[in-house]
Amino acid sequence: MKKFINAVDDVLAESLDGFAAAHADLVTLGAERKFVRRATPTPGKVALVSGGGSGHEPLHAGFVGRGMLDAACPGQVFTSPTPDQMLEAIAAVDGGAGTLLIVKNYEGDVMNFDMASEMAPSKVAKVITDDDVAVETSTYSIGRRGVAGTMIVEKIVGAAAEEGRALDELAALGSRVNGRTRSMGVALSSCTVPAAGKPTFAIGEDEMEMGVGIHGEPGRRRVKLASADAIAEEMIGAIAGDLPGTGDCLLLVNGFGATPLMELYLLYHAARSRLESRGFKVTRSLCGNYVTSLDMAGCSFTVSLLDGEATRLWDAPVHTPALRWGA
Amino acid sequence: MKKFINAVDDVLAESLDGFAAAHADLVTLGAERKFVRRATPTPGKVALVSGGGSGHEPLHAGFVGRGMLDAACPGQVFTSPTPDQMLEAIAAVDGGAGTLLIVKNYEGDVMNFDMASEMAPSKVAKVITDDDVAVETSTYSIGRRGVAGTMIVEKIVGAAAEEGRALDELAALGSRVNGRTRSMGVALSSCTVPAAGKPTFAIGEDEMEMGVGIHGEPGRRRVKLASADAIAEEMIGAIAGDLPGTGDCLLLVNGFGATPLMELYLLYHAARSRLESRGFKVTRSLCGNYVTSLDMAGCSFTVSLLDGEATRLWDAPVHTPALRWGA
Repeated sequence: MKKFINAVDDVLAESLDGFAAAHADLVTLGAERKFVRRATPTPGKVALVSGGGSGHEPLHAGFVGRGMLDAACPGQVFTSPTPDQMLEAIAAVDGGAGTLLIVKNYEGDVMNFDMASEMAPSKVAKVITDDDVAVETSTYSIGRRGVAGTMIVEKIVGAAAEEGRALDELAALGSRVNGRTRSMGVALSSCTVPAAGKPTFAIGEDEMEMGVGIHGEPGRRRVKLASADAIAEEMIGAIAGDLPGTGDCLLLVNGFGATPLMELYLLYHAARSRLESRGFKVTRSLCGNYVTSLDMAGCSFTVSLLDGEATRLWDAPVHTPALRWGA
Repeated sequence: MKKFINAVDDVLAESLDGFAAAHADLVTLGAERKFVRRATPTPGKVALVSGGGSGHEPLHAGFVGRGMLDAACPGQVFTSPTPDQMLEAIAAVDGGAGTLLIVKNYEGDVMNFDMASEMAPSKVAKVITDDDVAVETSTYSIGRRGVAGTMIVEKIVGAAAEEGRALDELAALGSRVNGRTRSMGVALSSCTVPAAGKPTFAIGEDEMEMGVGIHGEPGRRRVKLASADAIAEEMIGAIAGDLPGTGDCLLLVNGFGATPLMELYLLYHAARSRLESRGFKVTRSLCGNYVTSLDMAGCSFTVSLLDGEATRLWDAPVHTPALRWGA
């Protein structure tokens, strides 16, 4: 294992300390590093709290800030945060209007966020993201996995929360955005969890894992490495075939951590033309590392149908460590 | 070689097409893809033009936009753009106030930008960046290499150009910023140039290249992989020992392409404390992939001394594909 670390047990703590110091104008680390919260809360609004295993940076802590999340709970690498973390995050950011939890559909996350919901003294609602079309159940999930589409839900619902909308309305909006968002990924190499010290899965020099999950979970099948065009054709085909419509959309080409931006833009080119030939119009775009899998070489495509409201909320100002515009 | 590509010869063209389509609100691709320019020029100002071999994305094209570059010329991977490209870029963006070329110190780049300067019908000045303290000469450079500090020069001089300052003044500012900026890098793995099809250099499973260049050029020495703290100690020691002073500074922890953000923040933590114990105060920070080496696992540290003017210009609005704030 080749990583920039000190002791394996200190990776998360040291990384969070660096993150909080680098972005001290935007975020504050909670006691015992249980959560990351906004340095400057917006009073009166519904609080948005997300979280999950670490190793997907910048998701989720990188999306804490004005126009997006109020707090994020980082678990150990690929391990759900505890209900205790979530409860403390909710207590820290709930300003009386309630808290919306945004939860990726993995058993551990769902169970722990459910426990926290039940124990929370304040009003809590929940959105579960399950945008990955690759497989119907997986290693850590019953039903589809929540992957890169989660950040689109966080952005759009975050903007709506900033407008002062009510908890129920935000939960409904989150479900609606999730329902119009689909993703699929492919890996060229495995990730390596620091505590494991070796790659999560073995893969041949000429193979790729089509439909991989963001923890290295198996996808649809292991196949020979194909051209970028062929990969885009399969992934866009699967996504487009599963979406409930066509029309204006956001295209996110997301790197898993070890894929050069040059290749991501090449894939963007291949994906976009395939969307357009299927009746989609790409009106918003994002290309980079947003929902990663440590050092995995690979990428995912996410397509989210945009109506006028979703477009307006996507464009609304956001000021977080990893996503910033209009501010 | 495992990459998301189609034909090797089409990598750059398809990637640029994707880049231009994803950021059509900000940039326009010149004829025959010779340069990337701002979609909306700022009239009357001095034009800033940079460029160099591709494979370092987002540098340079990702920094074209308001508050930073006016145009960038992308060469083939790790290959200088041609004087012809530079001349066309200058012609496209020079609005009569002259053009400042920002050139990383590599023989091919310097020679070609010099040729373009001589042939240009308009007034042209030049800033050469050579911020890498690792080695005094290298595979492609006489004198120190220009690396990640280049983006700091581009940002600060870009902001000054937006204020309407004169060409000579901007050239002097660029040299001053470069003179107060130092970098050093380390690699855990080689990059692989698509046209070569195999890694640029071999490296053992337990080794790192200390002082590596952004094309995979040799650094100071090949050593056993060390802890993040030990790596930070050596690199910050080299940088701090070479800077012409201490005090307020910007710390850029830059990933080379295949290093997870989690590790970059851990390194940021290690680097920052070592700077502070040497009398520096980190007042501005950047942590992510900004000046990359394709799929190399590794990172560089850059420290740039900030006075009041440099801080103000760093903070000024910027709106480019890869760097955006205040806009």
